[in-house]
Amino acid sequence: MKLAMLKTADGPKLVGCTLDNQYVDLVAVDPKLPATLHEVLATPEGLTAAAHALAQGMSKGQFVTGAFLPPIAKPGKILCIGLNYRDHAEETGSPIPTEPIVFSKFPTAIIGPEDTIVLPKVSHEVDYEAELVVVIGKKGKNIPKATAFQHVAGYVVGNDVSARDWQKGRPGGQWLLGKTPDTFAPIGPWLVTADEVGDPHDLRVQCRLNGKTMQDSRTKELIFGIDHLISHVSQLMTLEPGDLIFTGTPPGVGAARKPPIFMQDGDTVEIEIEHMGVLKNHVAAEE
Amino acid sequence: MKLAMLKTADGPKLVGCTLDNQYVDLVAVDPKLPATLHEVLATPEGLTAAAHALAQGMSKGQFVTGAFLPPIAKPGKILCIGLNYRDHAEETGSPIPTEPIVFSKFPTAIIGPEDTIVLPKVSHEVDYEAELVVVIGKKGKNIPKATAFQHVAGYVVGNDVSARDWQKGRPGGQWLLGKTPDTFAPIGPWLVTADEVGDPHDLRVQCRLNGKTMQDSRTKELIFGIDHLISHVSQLMTLEPGDLIFTGTPPGVGAARKPPIFMQDGDTVEIEIEHMGVLKNHVAAEE
Repeated sequence: MKLAMLKTADGPKLVGCTLDNQYVDLVAVDPKLPATLHEVLATPEGLTAAAHALAQGMSKGQFVTGAFLPPIAKPGKILCIGLNYRDHAEETGSPIPTEPIVFSKFPTAIIGPEDTIVLPKVSHEVDYEAELVVVIGKKGKNIPKATAFQHVAGYVVGNDVSARDWQKGRPGGQWLLGKTPDTFAPIGPWLVTADEVGDPHDLRVQCRLNGKTMQDSRTKELIFGIDHLISHVSQLMTLEPGDLIFTGTPPGVGAARKPPIFMQDGDTVEIEIEHMGVLKNHVAAEE
Repeated sequence: MKLAMLKTADGPKLVGCTLDNQYVDLVAVDPKLPATLHEVLATPEGLTAAAHALAQGMSKGQFVTGAFLPPIAKPGKILCIGLNYRDHAEETGSPIPTEPIVFSKFPTAIIGPEDTIVLPKVSHEVDYEAELVVVIGKKGKNIPKATAFQHVAGYVVGNDVSARDWQKGRPGGQWLLGKTPDTFAPIGPWLVTADEVGDPHDLRVQCRLNGKTMQDSRTKELIFGIDHLISHVSQLMTLEPGDLIFTGTPPGVGAARKPPIFMQDGDTVEIEIEHMGVLKNHVAAEE
C-alpha cells in the first residue's frame, strides 16, 4: 500500500494510492481515521484501518486530487547514517565504519516532492545523496535485531541534501549544520508499506541530476542493514512512530567527483528507488 | 515572569509562578490562552496575555498545585553548542573554536525536574554539563546579530547530559549518540522570561553532584554569545518558537577530572543559574 498526504482545495488530506495513480480520500471513507499519516502510524492498527478504507474507497470511487505534501511533515526524529555503503566511504577517502555513524537533521529540513531545494546564501557546495528512508511504525527501546523489522511501518524515498562546506572542515567536526539547512530533507512522494517493498536490502537506488545518472547502486551494498541500525540506535533512544532513518547513500556524490559537481540554481534532482517511485525536486538559490 | 507546566490532578496545566512560589492556573483565568507553554510562545502576544492572566489570577487566588513537567515537552529543535567556554575547551584538550560547534539532541531526551536521568545499560561514562538554555519565541531565518535578542522568549536551566563513551572515540566522530539518549536533556523547572533574567551574559552557572560543587562559572565566559549563536545558526535554518539552544558548559565536567568522575545510580545532580533557580534530577541505572 502507498499512503500520502495531498494538498487539496479542502486542505491537507490523507490518501491511499491506487495502482493507476488515483488517490482515495481515506478519512472521507472512514471518519475514524486520523487526519495525517503520522497519526495513522501512531494509532494501533492504523495501517490496517487505512488499508480497509483504501479498498472501500476504490470501489466507491471516493477520489481526490491535489499536490503531494511531505508524507511525514514533522518527524520527531530524523536519524541519518553516514558512510553506510562501502564504495561511498572509499570515494570520500574515509575508513570503512566499524559501527554505524549516526547524525541528524531537524524537522525544519523536511520538504515534499513539490517543494524546492533552496541553496543557502552561505553555501556553495550543496550535494545530493540518494537514500532509502525507513519509517518507524512502532515504539521501542533496546530493540533486538531479530525483531527490528516489526518496528518498520514502511519506507520513503529520500535525498540527504548536504552542504559540504558546512559539513566538513569546521571546528569540532560535527556534520549537523551542513546536513540540516531548511529544505535539505526531501522525502516522498508516498510511504510504501513494508509488505509492498519486498526485500529492503535488495532495491536499486538511483540519483539523476538534470536527467543524468549520478548514483546507481543497490541496497544490498549497505554495510549495516536496517535491522542492525534499529537495534543499534535503540540501545540509546526510544524510537517512535513517524521517526525516520536515512540509511546512507551509495557512491557517485558530487563532492567525490573530479572536478566536484554541486547543485546549482535551476537544477532538477531525481531520486528513484525500485518499487517505490521517484522523488523529484527543483533547486533554487536562496533569495 | 516565570512560566511552567504542572502535572495536576486535572491533567497538565500552564501556570505562572508568584514570588512566593504559588502557581496560577493561567487558562482558568483566561480561557483564550492555549494549553501549553510551547503554544503560548507560538501565539502572537502570547506572553503578554500570560502576564495579564498571571496578575489577575494572583489577585483572585486562582492557584493550583502539582509536580513540574518539562516546560517545553517536545521542542522542534534542540541545538547544542560545544566547547563554548574557553577553559572548558582547554580542559578537554580541544582547540578554542573559531566558530560555534553545533550538535543536537532529539526531543525524546527531554525530561523535567521531577524526572530521573537514566544511565543507559550500554554506557559507563555519563557526565553532567550545567548550561544556560535559550528558548526561542519568534520565528526567523538569517537573523542579524543586532536583532537576535528579539527572537528570545526567555531561558531555562538545562543539563547537557553526555555519555562520553558514545560521544567520542567512535567512527565518524559525531557526538549525537552520546548526547541524545533518553532523559539526557533535563530542563526546568520554569521558563524565565528575558526581562526577568537581566544580562544573560553575566549569570553565575553552577553544577552540584551529590551536594558537592563541580562547576561554578559565569556566562560572561561564553566564547560565542547568545546573539552570535542565533545569527550563526539562522544562516542555515529557520528558528521557531519553542526551539532550544543549549549554550555550552563551563569547566569542571567529570570526564576532565583526574581521575574522571561519572554519574552513578543513586546520584543527585543540581544545576543552578543565578536569577533562574535550580534544576535537580536523580540518577538511576536503566532497568
